[in-house]
Amino acid sequence: MSLTALLTPYAHATLAELRRVVPKIEEHPAFYGQLHYHLGWATAEYQPADIPSGKRIRSAFCLMACELFADDVQPALSAAAAIELLHDFSLVHDDIEDGDRTRRHRPTLWTLVGQPQAINAGDGLFALAQLALLKSAEAGVAAERVLKAQKRLNETALALCIGQHLDMSFEKRDLVTPDEYIEMIRGKTAALLAFSGEVGALMGGANETDTRKFYELGEAMGLAFQMRDDLLGIWGDPAITGKPVGADIRAKKKSLPVAYALTHDESGELQALYRNSLKGKAKVERARKLIEATGAYEVVATRASAYEAKALEILESLNVSEARLLSLRTLADELAQRTY
Amino acid sequence: MSLTALLTPYAHATLAELRRVVPKIEEHPAFYGQLHYHLGWATAEYQPADIPSGKRIRSAFCLMACELFADDVQPALSAAAAIELLHDFSLVHDDIEDGDRTRRHRPTLWTLVGQPQAINAGDGLFALAQLALLKSAEAGVAAERVLKAQKRLNETALALCIGQHLDMSFEKRDLVTPDEYIEMIRGKTAALLAFSGEVGALMGGANETDTRKFYELGEAMGLAFQMRDDLLGIWGDPAITGKPVGADIRAKKKSLPVAYALTHDESGELQALYRNSLKGKAKVERARKLIEATGAYEVVATRASAYEAKALEILESLNVSEARLLSLRTLADELAQRTY
Repeated sequence: MSLTALLTPYAHATLAELRRVVPKIEEHPAFYGQLHYHLGWATAEYQPADIPSGKRIRSAFCLMACELFADDVQPALSAAAAIELLHDFSLVHDDIEDGDRTRRHRPTLWTLVGQPQAINAGDGLFALAQLALLKSAEAGVAAERVLKAQKRLNETALALCIGQHLDMSFEKRDLVTPDEYIEMIRGKTAALLAFSGEVGALMGGANETDTRKFYELGEAMGLAFQMRDDLLGIWGDPAITGKPVGADIRAKKKSLPVAYALTHDESGELQALYRNSLKGKAKVERARKLIEATGAYEVVATRASAYEAKALEILESLNVSEARLLSLRTLADELAQRTY
Repeated sequence: MSLTALLTPYAHATLAELRRVVPKIEEHPAFYGQLHYHLGWATAEYQPADIPSGKRIRSAFCLMACELFADDVQPALSAAAAIELLHDFSLVHDDIEDGDRTRRHRPTLWTLVGQPQAINAGDGLFALAQLALLKSAEAGVAAERVLKAQKRLNETALALCIGQHLDMSFEKRDLVTPDEYIEMIRGKTAALLAFSGEVGALMGGANETDTRKFYELGEAMGLAFQMRDDLLGIWGDPAITGKPVGADIRAKKKSLPVAYALTHDESGELQALYRNSLKGKAKVERARKLIEATGAYEVVATRASAYEAKALEILESLNVSEARLLSLRTLADELAQRTY
């Protein structure tokens, strides 16, 4: 089964819940229009639209975790919506903070309404993420479990903030160690996937041990996913990734292979390239050769494989029949083999 | 009793809880240093400091409401900390959105760390507000009440966002009707004071009727407070307010008296002044005369008095002895008579 075919039914269920949780545009067009625009539900003129969103891997993972314990996605639907809204909130603010003008082939919200209004609209998405999760109680989840989930949602939000803080501060530095980089992606990328698995298990009625396992499963998948993404950013096939050759080198992105290579650059030539210009095909190719010479590709690929192996080990430790693990195993496999 | 003397013990109790809830600066100096700086607990170099904060009227009101029902502030201490953190989160973002460079006689956070990091630090304060409130469960408040409080916290955050959205959009318009203005301050100012009373009563164990009354009490006090503030911004004594004569006129702030006057400006002279320059003492004085000629002062003062009377009526409807109402009545009286 392809990843898209696997994810589609979960994405539909989450979208239906999101539509239930996010106020209709009519309730306050000028304010909620901004949120609907970012979510792909409205045009720049705040007219109805249906722009394809991302794959919603995080919320699908949450629903799969819940399904494993409850035989039903229903108890985790509110959590799935909360995960997407938390992610969307962070995208709206990150786009402002990073000055990014395009997302999902459309102008980012701040380029449409200005930074002040977009900061404020992002805050609204954060509040809606909380309100979404609180609806779990209406779906019959015990109050204690909802409170626990709410606590974890906000600890996750804090981890996202610290990850983003590190990411922004790294941009101003010449060198970032691989350990520092991993601390950053643990917050910025892995924390939300870890929470997704954890809260899905929690809503599905899992015990503490299994809930913890789903946290660790999500974290391992998140770290591996980011490392594969970093490899693709330098060595990905432009025909498949849709990005130019060596995209992350051009953007001087200090991804893990670069962090590794810069701290193992004995001649100093790579550091000099990153301090100065990386414009032009020749310089990008030279930088890639220097990165390869440090063995960065193998180091990062080995680390990613180790996290992927850890994820599969956790799945196997669950003592569940192979048939019931199918969707989770497919998700883990697909993420590990991604080339896009 | 003076307002300061009344509020000080409550402010101390809230501060102690805030210190318990907000992570120590050592946990991540570069990130939490920003939060400690904004809270007045650290210098610009992130060294310990003890800068006087505001009066903490909102959290004091919350604690007074709780005390009335529980004979103790303890069940509402977490809520009081959450209220202050929600307020601080909104201040950090509002300062960026409004371009304000000074707060409490210090550079605002964004002028110190830049807008991108300050947006992200504000998000961290929002997450901490949620985590603060969730600690109510540890203080023995029933899970259902904590969930209800959490829901109201986030509905309040959404109201704040809509209020701020309106405030920013009004700046780009020539005319704002008094009704539009009141819709704005209902979100931006009154919603948080309403929540403060409501959540204090809720945590103190009040029934639904009394909890609702405290919401309405806070809303009435909040609306009256803002209207008095608007009057002081034009007619306040500079020796007492610490602001220049007609401060709000100079800043072309479309406060309620101005919104009223501009929509009752038959000659169009006031509208012309607000469309063009309001620089210089003569123009400010002329604008004030024109505002006075529409009867704006009396209209706004009458509205404020009506909300103050409503607040006292609600207090009297509580069926509580006069002795037990003392602090709440003093708070309501002091806010109504404020000249500072």
